[in-house]
Amino acid sequence: MPSQILTANARGVFAISATPFLDDGSLDLASTESLTQFYLDAGVHGLVILGMMGEANKLSDDEARRFLGRVLDVVGGRIPVIVGASNPGTLNLVQLSHDAMAAGAAGVMVAPVTSLRTDPQARDYFAAICNALGPDVPLVLQDFPLALGVHMSASILGQIFAENPQIVMFKHEDWPGLNKLSILRDAEEKGARRLSILTGMGGLHLPQELARGADGAMTGFCFPEMLVGVCAAYARGDAEAGEDLFDIYLPLVRHEAQPGIGLALRKEVLRRRGAIASGVTRHPGPKLTARDHEDLTSLLARIERRLATDGKNAIVAGAERTMA
Amino acid sequence: MPSQILTANARGVFAISATPFLDDGSLDLASTESLTQFYLDAGVHGLVILGMMGEANKLSDDEARRFLGRVLDVVGGRIPVIVGASNPGTLNLVQLSHDAMAAGAAGVMVAPVTSLRTDPQARDYFAAICNALGPDVPLVLQDFPLALGVHMSASILGQIFAENPQIVMFKHEDWPGLNKLSILRDAEEKGARRLSILTGMGGLHLPQELARGADGAMTGFCFPEMLVGVCAAYARGDAEAGEDLFDIYLPLVRHEAQPGIGLALRKEVLRRRGAIASGVTRHPGPKLTARDHEDLTSLLARIERRLATDGKNAIVAGAERTMA
Amino acid sequence: MPSQILTANARGVFAISATPFLDDGSLDLASTESLTQFYLDAGVHGLVILGMMGEANKLSDDEARRFLGRVLDVVGGRIPVIVGASNPGTLNLVQLSHDAMAAGAAGVMVAPVTSLRTDPQARDYFAAICNALGPDVPLVLQDFPLALGVHMSASILGQIFAENPQIVMFKHEDWPGLNKLSILRDAEEKGARRLSILTGMGGLHLPQELARGADGAMTGFCFPEMLVGVCAAYARGDAEAGEDLFDIYLPLVRHEAQPGIGLALRKEVLRRRGAIASGVTRHPGPKLTARDHEDLTSLLARIERRLATDGKNAIVAGAERTMA
Amino acid sequence: MPSQILTANARGVFAISATPFLDDGSLDLASTESLTQFYLDAGVHGLVILGMMGEANKLSDDEARRFLGRVLDVVGGRIPVIVGASNPGTLNLVQLSHDAMAAGAAGVMVAPVTSLRTDPQARDYFAAICNALGPDVPLVLQDFPLALGVHMSASILGQIFAENPQIVMFKHEDWPGLNKLSILRDAEEKGARRLSILTGMGGLHLPQELARGADGAMTGFCFPEMLVGVCAAYARGDAEAGEDLFDIYLPLVRHEAQPGIGLALRKEVLRRRGAIASGVTRHPGPKLTARDHEDLTSLLARIERRLATDGKNAIVAGAERTMA
Repeated sequence: MPSQILTANARGVFAISATPFLDDGSLDLASTESLTQFYLDAGVHGLVILGMMGEANKLSDDEARRFLGRVLDVVGGRIPVIVGASNPGTLNLVQLSHDAMAAGAAGVMVAPVTSLRTDPQARDYFAAICNALGPDVPLVLQDFPLALGVHMSASILGQIFAENPQIVMFKHEDWPGLNKLSILRDAEEKGARRLSILTGMGGLHLPQELARGADGAMTGFCFPEMLVGVCAAYARGDAEAGEDLFDIYLPLVRHEAQPGIGLALRKEVLRRRGAIASGVTRHPGPKLTARDHEDLTSLLARIERRLATDGKNAIVAGAERTMA
Repeated sequence: MPSQILTANARGVFAISATPFLDDGSLDLASTESLTQFYLDAGVHGLVILGMMGEANKLSDDEARRFLGRVLDVVGGRIPVIVGASNPGTLNLVQLSHDAMAAGAAGVMVAPVTSLRTDPQARDYFAAICNALGPDVPLVLQDFPLALGVHMSASILGQIFAENPQIVMFKHEDWPGLNKLSILRDAEEKGARRLSILTGMGGLHLPQELARGADGAMTGFCFPEMLVGVCAAYARGDAEAGEDLFDIYLPLVRHEAQPGIGLALRKEVLRRRGAIASGVTRHPGPKLTARDHEDLTSLLARIERRLATDGKNAIVAGAERTMA
Repeated sequence: MPSQILTANARGVFAISATPFLDDGSLDLASTESLTQFYLDAGVHGLVILGMMGEANKLSDDEARRFLGRVLDVVGGRIPVIVGASNPGTLNLVQLSHDAMAAGAAGVMVAPVTSLRTDPQARDYFAAICNALGPDVPLVLQDFPLALGVHMSASILGQIFAENPQIVMFKHEDWPGLNKLSILRDAEEKGARRLSILTGMGGLHLPQELARGADGAMTGFCFPEMLVGVCAAYARGDAEAGEDLFDIYLPLVRHEAQPGIGLALRKEVLRRRGAIASGVTRHPGPKLTARDHEDLTSLLARIERRLATDGKNAIVAGAERTMA
Repeated sequence: MPSQILTANARGVFAISATPFLDDGSLDLASTESLTQFYLDAGVHGLVILGMMGEANKLSDDEARRFLGRVLDVVGGRIPVIVGASNPGTLNLVQLSHDAMAAGAAGVMVAPVTSLRTDPQARDYFAAICNALGPDVPLVLQDFPLALGVHMSASILGQIFAENPQIVMFKHEDWPGLNKLSILRDAEEKGARRLSILTGMGGLHLPQELARGADGAMTGFCFPEMLVGVCAAYARGDAEAGEDLFDIYLPLVRHEAQPGIGLALRKEVLRRRGAIASGVTRHPGPKLTARDHEDLTSLLARIERRLATDGKNAIVAGAERTMA
């Protein structure tokens, strides 16, 4: 199987893949195949597996290998696949990373361990990780303060990037984070090495982030084709069309961005769209109530109406071009 | 001046008022008057002052009294005014509450002190607060786990409500919080005392919250007339029209809902709309960059376009009815 | 190999075992044997492996099984061995628990997942865990708010104990925690099922905890024989002798109780005492500086002097009896 | 009244003063006088008022001024008095600081606001505070991550010290914190400006901190004369005598260092020692149970016995010299 190596030139949408389970909680490898195909069909430019929203920390070591092997098989080298390797222990992190690269991954994504509290600790941590991985493993640094409790300023991030050339991508997920993004891009104007910056938060601020210089989105929103369309519109310089398309989905983006329950909402939409067989999350994980299902049904119907109604309008003229 | 007393029947929009400062950080009493009038003109059903988004903890004891006195003067008893009285010390909390009630406030709002960690601690705290305030002070219990780090389940809240009849309103601001809202309303179906429930988060989930039984919004979004219109649409049973109107503003709602910087964005829009003279927040508080201003300009222009364009559509037929 | 089953009658000292690594970070099975023998020689009444201070979350699934197998071999059923099974995913938790019980463990210890925020969530979590484990796996509920951020009141704990009879032991590690301990014991006076309560915090408050009704200590302090002596003194009603002995070691207890670095200090003393070959912790973990080594040397010398000097005094008359 | 100005040469014990209340919670100015005299009699080298353990955030603006005025009157310029000025709002902070300096304070102590998350934010904050205070107000920077959630590395602290010459003292209260202290002192060896460093944590690690170069203690332990004795012993080069004396009180130091309840324990001992009329803390604050009182009684009796018994020993020969 041909593999791709992640570089700092990566752009577009890297979908954070869910991990599908059967209703009894066991790993669903058939849905793994259909879900991977779903992302490919949506036109994403890359895939991220075994991330936080992939419930990676609920898999056994063996399950993680089987899942990543199946995804890489289906992808067949057509797009780069990044493997989430964050782990409380560096040896485990390195072992999974090397296994993943050997299996054809394009790079690995690592978030800071939650015990880091200061800039020097963050700097030491990523230096140690890069050293332990070896220089041939491209790294995505994941920054998600709301979930991890680790806060890294743009200045310490810049230092970490400068010292570790194998970090080629930055997963931006601070909240608020727009000015952090601008500071990082401004630093590149002044000579810092350019990284690929993809943004998260379920896409909640994607238009503003693209306007600030993000290269795309790295998130698992249940309509990845919208993310693709928005990024394409910005890439061709038609920001308003991108934002028009985005706004149609924003009510659902915002709904899915709720912490905790958001993953269950996302998996349920993936199920309704036929991408996976069951929307279940592994215990302990969120479950949807009947009213949660009703909310989703209503929000999905409104999106369909908006897509249909606005088809006659200038708004969707842009959107249609975008999604073509 | 005639005053109103807050009851559990309160509905609609209670605007969380900003506290206006001059560029040098001093209290701006002239803008206090114009801002209060701005809220009245927007048709809000109540006002909340000295809340977290009112930078209350940056005021001196004396400034707090002067500010609340001026607001109450302008309101002149036309709508109920709730005074945020949360304080690390109960004596200070009681003193401000009694001063506020004497000046014509309709009730006070109290959030749990941040040291509370367990259900019994929360229960004891609110029992002690009610006892210290005396039964004649109507209380709004503020629940805001993301900001306060205090997590109260629906079950302990139900117990607190049952034991303290002077709690007439619940400020709902958990995230995710829709099912918590449903559980509280379901409990009322089964015999629990009914409270007014108003929701926060900048209005981010307002349509879904209204569908779950919220009585309205308590938030400071910079277009309070939109909140009024949405609540009115839901009140007359036209949920889709309410959500149509909401969606036009959602990009800005989501933008303003960013923690920290959100307050500076809100005050800047209030300034642009002529409600206050300066958008400054007191130090240490967020400041806007030039790019932050550009984001706002773009988002505001898009709302104007949407309001104009969609005026020909069924969508805005509802919205126009709503805002009429 | 004969195995023991953990019951609510357990008393004394259950040592939290370190996990020994070679200097290169690999699992050290030879030191696993010597360390287990060290604890047996110290007279402990039970052993706890794969706990937080055992760096369990840095082991691979396979390493965890090899380590627990070796410990159980050495123990040979002479004392009960509890296996830490806490895991973000319940399936992994159950798999390890069942493997451990099959290998001869006496029970498993489970801490709440760190996402739990309210009493009902805690209650649901442990009900689900007990259900998933099946009724034949004796459970130790670990309460460690400072490290986990999960706060369970005595009242919700009492409810969890009442609803899940297989919970036979409570690992008490709240801080402050003395009154919580008293409330739990008082509830038993009033009819609640009695549990074994062992206390942690490195033993920092052991005398006061024993006076409040604790059955012993569950901690990994590097002189387990002191913990054994103190518990024995209290058990025979000679609290003052117990506290005299405790106070000799208190400077080191307090020093080792420092978060983070405490584990490295503990492992270094175990190394100096010949129990393990290397004091290294797995990355990312604390490392000692030259000054840290000097502090330890000084504190250990002072303990030796106190043990020698006070041998002539009434103080140590008690201590000698205790350690005999 | 003559006043002292705080300098970087300050050494010894700066007692964190409690704020005495009557049983009804009102400010007790008579006990304010007796407590201040108690600290003076214990031989402390400075006093800190309106700190976190002084319940400053539960006082009204007016009470804070009355309390500090009374303390400064009693002290009469004999020792430097530092006023805690931390506040969510900088204007309030500056107003209290200037009032305090005008009334005869030697300097003010400021902790970072709890919203700070990164090194640049901390740096900006203290630059702004120093600028707002003006260069004539000597500043103590308080570092207390466990309570505040703000983590500042030694490197950013060094930068803050370098940029703000009016910061003359560092209140060290990180946990673990010994290596942070060493790094700061090592930086001075290499040319950084020397600051006075006093340590907190209730004195829990005082001997090790003095060995690492601390200039003394800034804490409110209820036997300040012990802290004075220990610092004196270290100052004259007799570390073992200092540690001998310390160890006699360590069981109580450790007991009082419990978070939350520690303040109630401290005030109760101050009450038993006749320094204040009531041990009450303002609501919401900790209260002692009957068993808490028994623990204290027992621990105090043991200290008395140790002081008496060890009077015949070499151990206390040092202690007696120290306390003379």
